Amino acid sequence: MNVIPIVHVHVWEGIGEEKAKRIIEEITKVFEDLDIPKHAVEVVVHEVPKTHWGIGGEPASQKFKNQK
Amino acid sequence: MNVIPIVHVHVWEGIGEEKAKRIIEEITKVFEDLDIPKHAVEVVVHEVPKTHWGIGGEPASQKFKNQK
Amino acid sequence: MNVIPIVHVHVWEGIGEEKAKRIIEEITKVFEDLDIPKHAVEVVVHEVPKTHWGIGGEPASQKFKNQK
Amino acid sequence: MNVIPIVHVHVWEGIGEEKAKRIIEEITKVFEDLDIPKHAVEVVVHEVPKTHWGIGGEPASQKFKNQK
Amino acid sequence: MNVIPIVHVHVWEGIGEEKAKRIIEEITKVFEDLDIPKHAVEVVVHEVPKTHWGIGGEPASQKFKNQK
Amino acid sequence: MNVIPIVHVHVWEGIGEEKAKRIIEEITKVFEDLDIPKHAVEVVVHEVPKTHWGIGGEPASQKFKNQK
Repeated sequence: MNVIPIVHVHVWEGIGEEKAKRIIEEITKVFEDLDIPKHAVEVVVHEVPKTHWGIGGEPASQKFKNQK
Repeated sequence: MNVIPIVHVHVWEGIGEEKAKRIIEEITKVFEDLDIPKHAVEVVVHEVPKTHWGIGGEPASQKFKNQK
Repeated sequence: MNVIPIVHVHVWEGIGEEKAKRIIEEITKVFEDLDIPKHAVEVVVHEVPKTHWGIGGEPASQKFKNQK
Repeated sequence: MNVIPIVHVHVWEGIGEEKAKRIIEEITKVFEDLDIPKHAVEVVVHEVPKTHWGIGGEPASQKFKNQK
Repeated sequence: MNVIPIVHVHVWEGIGEEKAKRIIEEITKVFEDLDIPKHAVEVVVHEVPKTHWGIGGEPASQKFKNQK
Repeated sequence: MNVIPIVHVHVWEGIGEEKAKRIIEEITKVFEDLDIPKHAVEVVVHEVPKTHWGIGGEPASQKFKNQK
């Protein structure tokens, strides 16, 4: 596949550097497996506070308040 | 309407949790009124500092510096 | 609330002009109700083919193939 | 990892349904491997014409015109 | 400035290849002037139909219907 | 060119207000040179930590760790 992909990942705040790194590594591999050269892949991980992420009409901070 | 909407809202930094919550609730209702089930709607609110938001070639922090 | 919002709505292809218009009108009203002047609100509706929208690891075109 | 990810993938126009499907499947697996339930993952693939994708100051359509 | 920028430009449908090319060239130069190597800059131009772009609560197709 | 552009610029964290301002000014000029009225242009600069920005399968924080 001849393409230069840009990937924006949006997740809840608090994933930390290790998880961010793993997401970057693994998503890049998805494209390498499609014969895209590794150096061409950019993956940008955006963290968003759970108070600002709505699902089903409620902030995730409220909906999932008993989870961490 | 058969669709799963994802909504990204970009606003200036400082809106706070209560406003974020209200934006989430009200935008979700917009889609419910279009017969989309509430649980299918995701609304993500991104805050951006006014120094990083340009309008008319100037940062909002400068253009609207007498407002709060 | 003093802010200029930009809203990007992503939906499945095929909503048509009337629905796009209604989404624009109603989301703009959400911000007007928060005392943001109407002229400051931009709402951009992006349609994405169901073949290109994944949910639960499957394209929506496959997962929801019996719906229209 | 407790999170609901939204992934926007931007690629050059012409990847087709099969590649889009594979990208959806494989990126979803990346998150499953991080213990995120499959049903919570949304992956949206956006195709952009090579004439509208700039790299190094040139449209990809021009820079890579001898490739397909 | 040490940074790899990704720029997403959203415009109304119909700008055509020449304008897209010029936007790519000129925005890349903005970053070159900030000492960012040209090859590191990606600029992606997204066209959106005027019927799907809301400003002041109305689709641009309606608000600006006497302009082309 | 008759269009209202919205530009999202993604850069690594740490550019500061002065650089953000310059990016806003210069990108706005790109559109003014295309006969778009200045007041119609919005440029939003998003900073992303280098730990969350992947290039070639590695976080930029790691790949470029000897640069600042």
